[in-house]
Amino acid sequence: MAPLKIHGIAMSTCTGRVMATAFEKDAPFELQPVDLFSGAHKKPDFLALQPFGVIPVLQDENLTIFESRAIARYIANKYEGQGTPLYGETLQDKAKVDQWLEVESQNYNPPISTIVGQLVFRPMRGEPTEESVVSDNIAKLEKVLDIYEEHLAKNEYLAGDFFSLADLSHLPYTHYLINLAKKGDVITSRKHVNAWWEKISSRPSWQEVIQLASKK
Amino acid sequence: MAPLKIHGIAMSTCTGRVMATAFEKDAPFELQPVDLFSGAHKKPDFLALQPFGVIPVLQDENLTIFESRAIARYIANKYEGQGTPLYGETLQDKAKVDQWLEVESQNYNPPISTIVGQLVFRPMRGEPTEESVVSDNIAKLEKVLDIYEEHLAKNEYLAGDFFSLADLSHLPYTHYLINLAKKGDVITSRKHVNAWWEKISSRPSWQEVIQLASKK
Repeated sequence: MAPLKIHGIAMSTCTGRVMATAFEKDAPFELQPVDLFSGAHKKPDFLALQPFGVIPVLQDENLTIFESRAIARYIANKYEGQGTPLYGETLQDKAKVDQWLEVESQNYNPPISTIVGQLVFRPMRGEPTEESVVSDNIAKLEKVLDIYEEHLAKNEYLAGDFFSLADLSHLPYTHYLINLAKKGDVITSRKHVNAWWEKISSRPSWQEVIQLASKK
Repeated sequence: MAPLKIHGIAMSTCTGRVMATAFEKDAPFELQPVDLFSGAHKKPDFLALQPFGVIPVLQDENLTIFESRAIARYIANKYEGQGTPLYGETLQDKAKVDQWLEVESQNYNPPISTIVGQLVFRPMRGEPTEESVVSDNIAKLEKVLDIYEEHLAKNEYLAGDFFSLADLSHLPYTHYLINLAKKGDVITSRKHVNAWWEKISSRPSWQEVIQLASKK
């Protein structure tokens, strides 16, 4: 089987989500770099693959798929029989994974991606950080994390007693929040969230992603 | 098999997404009304089911699931063998459905839910509409719809030549946009988007949801 072709860059959060999934599923892939600095993602060749002009994009034989969470789901489904069972074992497990994937996407991602955007990506582009946007979104994220704290006091992982795609999907932005935006106190100050974070971020799959990202 | 229990209200957009899915899958359900006006969704009984305090919530025997798109996925999976095949037939179909579900959730929903919130829900609560927020989000939605227009010129439905969960997920807010926010021109002015909308909104499943909502 030909390796999956992932168009993206190793240090991108959304590309990281896809690569972590591939590592968990022992799915061979090759990274096809997209030169964001020269605007390659807004040029016709790339737009033919991804009309919204954002990374990552997956190509697998004659299939082209975009949106990182959809790509992650595809890899989890295609390689169902190998690697980590990222949807659990039963229909009920899968429902819980889907639920927490949606919580990540609808409740966790909006504030955390805004904070990281303000404190990491805007300065990279020479734009000022808007402090009130940061503090508003820290407050929103803390409310979400209070619910996570209560949930993780009773559950080892988000979907229950198994590591899943839902946990994995939190890795990239939380890593940036802690290590680049330096706002990790919202994680470390919450006992069960912190224990969960230590567990999921130390997985070999995520360590491999960090290593790849640090080479670029 | 006991009917699914859906905690929500018939006129809620997210409850509508779940009910439309149940109708497409011929999945029997009963609606358990949640009295939002008295704040029932912020009280301990409800928060024990849904810690974020929003509707809908699904209960099926001993399983409790929230987040409308996760509930819709669960119903589609549980009733895989009956009703409309909402994920298509193959792994590649499923990948395309997941992709467009993510586009709906990440690109379409943020502007459309903001517009409907401003023009429908804020006035309902006696709050003023912020016109600049409306116009900014109309502009964002139009950019997304331009991409849909090009895609739907070549595809009958979002994921290909079959009606799927991805199309269905667009029904509630688009219905509100057209019929309550009166901003339907962004749909009708685009030939292929409009043809798609006519097709998906005339499905018996959605008509049943509208009928239920109009009774409340």
